[in-house]
Amino acid sequence: MTELNDLPLRDELRGKSPYGAPQLDVPVRLNTNENPYPLPEALVERIAERVTEAARQLNRYPDRDAVELRTELARYLTRSTGHPLGHEQVWAANGSNEVLQQLLQAFGGPGRTAIGFEPSYSMHGLIARGTGTGWISGPRNADFTIDTEAAVRAIGEHRPHVVFVCSPNNPTGTAVDEATVLALYEAAQAARPEQGALVVVDEAYGEFSHRPSLLPLLAGRPTLVVSRTMSKAFGAAGLRLGYLAAAAAVVDAVQLVRLPYHLSAVTQATALAALEHTDTLLGYVEQLKAERDRLVAELRALGCEVTDSDANFIQFGRFEGEGGAHAMWEALLAHGVLVRDNGVPGWLRVTAGTPKENDAFLDAVRAASKELKEKSER
Amino acid sequence: MTELNDLPLRDELRGKSPYGAPQLDVPVRLNTNENPYPLPEALVERIAERVTEAARQLNRYPDRDAVELRTELARYLTRSTGHPLGHEQVWAANGSNEVLQQLLQAFGGPGRTAIGFEPSYSMHGLIARGTGTGWISGPRNADFTIDTEAAVRAIGEHRPHVVFVCSPNNPTGTAVDEATVLALYEAAQAARPEQGALVVVDEAYGEFSHRPSLLPLLAGRPTLVVSRTMSKAFGAAGLRLGYLAAAAAVVDAVQLVRLPYHLSAVTQATALAALEHTDTLLGYVEQLKAERDRLVAELRALGCEVTDSDANFIQFGRFEGEGGAHAMWEALLAHGVLVRDNGVPGWLRVTAGTPKENDAFLDAVRAASKELKEKSER
Repeated sequence: MTELNDLPLRDELRGKSPYGAPQLDVPVRLNTNENPYPLPEALVERIAERVTEAARQLNRYPDRDAVELRTELARYLTRSTGHPLGHEQVWAANGSNEVLQQLLQAFGGPGRTAIGFEPSYSMHGLIARGTGTGWISGPRNADFTIDTEAAVRAIGEHRPHVVFVCSPNNPTGTAVDEATVLALYEAAQAARPEQGALVVVDEAYGEFSHRPSLLPLLAGRPTLVVSRTMSKAFGAAGLRLGYLAAAAAVVDAVQLVRLPYHLSAVTQATALAALEHTDTLLGYVEQLKAERDRLVAELRALGCEVTDSDANFIQFGRFEGEGGAHAMWEALLAHGVLVRDNGVPGWLRVTAGTPKENDAFLDAVRAASKELKEKSER
Repeated sequence: MTELNDLPLRDELRGKSPYGAPQLDVPVRLNTNENPYPLPEALVERIAERVTEAARQLNRYPDRDAVELRTELARYLTRSTGHPLGHEQVWAANGSNEVLQQLLQAFGGPGRTAIGFEPSYSMHGLIARGTGTGWISGPRNADFTIDTEAAVRAIGEHRPHVVFVCSPNNPTGTAVDEATVLALYEAAQAARPEQGALVVVDEAYGEFSHRPSLLPLLAGRPTLVVSRTMSKAFGAAGLRLGYLAAAAAVVDAVQLVRLPYHLSAVTQATALAALEHTDTLLGYVEQLKAERDRLVAELRALGCEVTDSDANFIQFGRFEGEGGAHAMWEALLAHGVLVRDNGVPGWLRVTAGTPKENDAFLDAVRAASKELKEKSER
């Protein structure tokens, strides 16, 4: 039987494991920042209609440029941010991971570097490595906000070709303010005065923020990109639909590296159906924001440290005793609640679920804390 | 307005155009090797059912490892080739292009090289470049078969990490025999004695061949890979479902580079529905094979040169007068028939369509040949 190590695999992949949270079957799954609300039945029916239509022509390739879908995404962004966009300034792919991969294929790659401020969404670094882009881990403050001065200094020192800013940041929930993004953008352009550097603001969780989108900053900034997803706010993690907004030239650039017909006709049809139901889905977002704020308050009342959150998840801690955060992760799992250990020492991340799921989570925290305390006193 | 060239784009992308055939609205489209038969209505209904079920859980991420789909693909391959496979030996992605991209990320990439024997499927070279893999253009005989001796020599000389063999070959239609693949496989292993080299047999058009699949060669060859697609034989170009069969360790390797949750729940549901209707869809393949053979015979009777075809398309020529193949391409378009100019000097490629479409194509060839002849005599 051939083993992985017998194969002519690239050296940097040897000994690595595939990325991804454990997919465990437990009563309360609050580990992958999914939206807990299933799509409304009217939307499920509309998806079936749209997909039926698409299936009748499935023997043909899909619209390679997904113009109808990009037009509707542009309309949604325009409406929700007030920043006018057309389909020429929007691009879509199979999840925002693929959008980011395409950006790095066009603007990063071998001989180039990208920087992110960690802890942050770990796929930024993984996709950089997967595209041969050198990865630079930039700093954050102890409260998980970006240390603007240190970040600007790191950009000046490393002169990266691509800068990632995740806002709200995953896994900490921290939003980034406009002034910080502007400072990073200016620093990135100054560090590479010939043609500038790409600054990618990852707003996967943008709709859950207390603050407005940073998207209007696109005006007059040709190397700024805002990436988004339908996985969270649109309750469609299973759909794999990510998108970006940027200058039309950035969209042209991405089209040079995208695989042709990357976006299937069923994906386009399903996404279009979901966009018809935007108002209903954003109603769920409002409920989740309220639950997120409640969770922050209740966890603090329980004596947990909680990072301010602008996302649909919360970073809580600090678990510094024996076993650290992982002992707490295991104790919560024993109570039927799955949260995420992102490897940030002392901290765990929990997704805001339905009120009932959140109550179950809070009960589990109470019970697990007691158990761990008793254990440590023994 | 920012132009593409003002952006910090990678140098090798400057001046390039996105890959893809023109998507023109003409009566008879025989340019992208699509299956002309729409999915049967019973299958369309089954897709709607399966997608409805998936849409009810669309707020959750899809099965990251697509185990049910890979199990059914393995069952199909086992049944049609007699070579027993389980889901551990099968991998699926958004079109075989993404499968090939993942293979090159794991086994190619910066500092490594891949070889193909051209003219062949031009995406092999493009995906190599897109993943930072050096591309080597290997030779073919004048009749478009692989010159085994020259190919073995090229492999020994360049010591590529990945070897592409397209059978039936696109755009020529040429099948590759078992002896040639075995010779290339042996040469590739001999050239890299430490860990061997990957040999990828691209059987995107395998079901249309007069010959059996090369898939049984996988036995005892841990670095051999066979890639397939549902775009052609399953009449589902719009679905974007490609897959591979190989040693389980190769599938493990690809999972180190795949983007997590790359395959949407709607794609998995639609593909599973299509696999339930395999027998009906393979019935269309038989009709297309008969039409393909008729087209070869009729084009030859019209005085065209035609490359032997094992695919659902035919390479025909030779157009060596003024304007060459492109003049013929334009003349056929003027008659409402869109074929493909793949840039092989003197040759064009036509997809086998329905009997009616093929008749329209043959009429257009007759008329266009006459026009071009008259024009050249003027």
